[in-house]
Amino acid sequence: MTLAVRYKAARTLDTAVVDPPAPGRGEVELAPAYVGICGTDLHIFHGDMDARVATPAVLGHEMSGRIVRVGPGVEDWAPGDAVTVMPLRWDGSCPACRAGHQHVCQHLDFIGIDSPGAMQQRWTVPASTLIRLPGSLALDRAALVEPTAVAVHDVGRAGVREGEKVVVVGGGPVGMLIALVARAAGAQVRVVELSAHRRLLAEELGLTAWDPAVEDVPALVRQWTGDAGAQVAFEVSGAAGGMDTAVEVLGVRGRLCLVAIHPRPREVNLHRFFWRELTLVGARLYERGDFERAVALVAEGTIPAGRLISKVVPLTQAPAAFEALEGGGDVMKILVDCTDDTQGAVQ
Amino acid sequence: MTLAVRYKAARTLDTAVVDPPAPGRGEVELAPAYVGICGTDLHIFHGDMDARVATPAVLGHEMSGRIVRVGPGVEDWAPGDAVTVMPLRWDGSCPACRAGHQHVCQHLDFIGIDSPGAMQQRWTVPASTLIRLPGSLALDRAALVEPTAVAVHDVGRAGVREGEKVVVVGGGPVGMLIALVARAAGAQVRVVELSAHRRLLAEELGLTAWDPAVEDVPALVRQWTGDAGAQVAFEVSGAAGGMDTAVEVLGVRGRLCLVAIHPRPREVNLHRFFWRELTLVGARLYERGDFERAVALVAEGTIPAGRLISKVVPLTQAPAAFEALEGGGDVMKILVDCTDDTQGAVQ
Repeated sequence: MTLAVRYKAARTLDTAVVDPPAPGRGEVELAPAYVGICGTDLHIFHGDMDARVATPAVLGHEMSGRIVRVGPGVEDWAPGDAVTVMPLRWDGSCPACRAGHQHVCQHLDFIGIDSPGAMQQRWTVPASTLIRLPGSLALDRAALVEPTAVAVHDVGRAGVREGEKVVVVGGGPVGMLIALVARAAGAQVRVVELSAHRRLLAEELGLTAWDPAVEDVPALVRQWTGDAGAQVAFEVSGAAGGMDTAVEVLGVRGRLCLVAIHPRPREVNLHRFFWRELTLVGARLYERGDFERAVALVAEGTIPAGRLISKVVPLTQAPAAFEALEGGGDVMKILVDCTDDTQGAVQ
Repeated sequence: MTLAVRYKAARTLDTAVVDPPAPGRGEVELAPAYVGICGTDLHIFHGDMDARVATPAVLGHEMSGRIVRVGPGVEDWAPGDAVTVMPLRWDGSCPACRAGHQHVCQHLDFIGIDSPGAMQQRWTVPASTLIRLPGSLALDRAALVEPTAVAVHDVGRAGVREGEKVVVVGGGPVGMLIALVARAAGAQVRVVELSAHRRLLAEELGLTAWDPAVEDVPALVRQWTGDAGAQVAFEVSGAAGGMDTAVEVLGVRGRLCLVAIHPRPREVNLHRFFWRELTLVGARLYERGDFERAVALVAEGTIPAGRLISKVVPLTQAPAAFEALEGGGDVMKILVDCTDDTQGAVQ
């Protein structure tokens, strides 16, 4: 028996006692410690993903925790091990998998959306999803590994190289992580973000941030780049204006990495893609190598995870935290602490 | 004194006697033999490019011909040499040029749009634009080198590899050339084209062509690829529906090469770019290597240039040919024969 945060219907979460399955062959039972609330979780909360999510659904996929017990056939893992989870299960047989792109399997099971997630006190997952955490890494910070893996994947898809000028449109958690990962790759970075709170945080982290409501961002980029335009832009805002900005700031042969979800078709300035020979690169999720790199970046402090955590709430307060997050604005990452009742056992 | 085809105003062409400048330092005077009518020339004729084109404007940039005389300082070239022209003049100092992408120079002079073109009996151009033609290549076929260089550039930008499945959306001259160049690179190719005349020509050239007005093209591609989707699509139609088709037929990590001009923003299914990690690559014009490869492809017959030439009209009939072309449909490439009065001298 374990307490879980469940999505019931649009704008309705509860906490309830559930009975997660015992670990079967090749599976492990985890005690989640901290679980981040992601933009996707908010989309589910808003009811935008009802066609995909079977209710009641236990949410959560940005997590850290420890192994409680291992099922038959699981080697290399033992109770007490600190882990995070790469929450993907692929079929291994579809054309995408056969081409080596399992993370975008045509029948992907994303754990935490398509099957039960981490916002509960016990969670059973395949051992194949586990990523080992170093003992030196505090578990609250380790909950940032999953979104950092997204950023590592995005920066890799864009092929960011040392010395390049990079514009990140959208300075929420993923945009901020992309900016930090790109900077770690040697790029010069500018962040475009409407929220004053987030711009302030960016500046505190040594990044330059611009307010698109006040500044003429393309003009600033022209000035910054000597009229050449940026080499790379990341569209992380999900807004029509954000896409326009990302296209407009790029110089000849610039690369636009599309990270945000735009559920409906958007008007795009295709002529600019032709004229400047731009490239648009879609980026989704991550591969194992991205996760391993993300663990290293968070553990070594290149990603100042502690600075990105705005608040930690106990599991029973998670529903209220979702409602508070709807206002957006003055928060970055909120973590749900799942350890309340079991802290002695698992920490 | 030389006869020239000139654009005067929307839907108004004339032929007139003009006086082209004598070749200055580093320039050559050519006697154009054949000049193809390009889609861009039709855009100019329609008045769509009046903001850019200074009237009266001598049109034409797809040409073959011979050198008549060379200006001071020109080495390696002599009267009688058979040539085509890469009609680009760049400033060499803008950020695009400094990055090595002179063909998309931020202040590019496209000869035939921004300065006088080839539809005249004498034409003065910089010697740096000349591309040598082999003696074995008939000059009418050689007029197809320029659009073939476009296709070579596009296939290169898309990175087409042997064995890949490629969908070309739009089977006009450039689309057909892309299909042929991609096939020469070892790809399997399908052409999507509304015109029955053009589909028939494609089939005669050994290509499979589909009618999007009758066929469910994405379903045909799923069937053809075992549900994997195509690896590469070329959007050469310029139509909204063409862009949708090109996005929809691609499998995971597919590459869409954007060749057509879409003057106004288009609605694009960005979610598909995210979900399948697609890439959109803009492609414009060509570089010298593309032109040299195009000469070889046309000369060796890999591009059956003779089959793509629908009609050859004398220079004085060029205005009427533009009007006939407006109907579209049952033609592929029309050449203007500029040699009427001077054939003895230059052939």
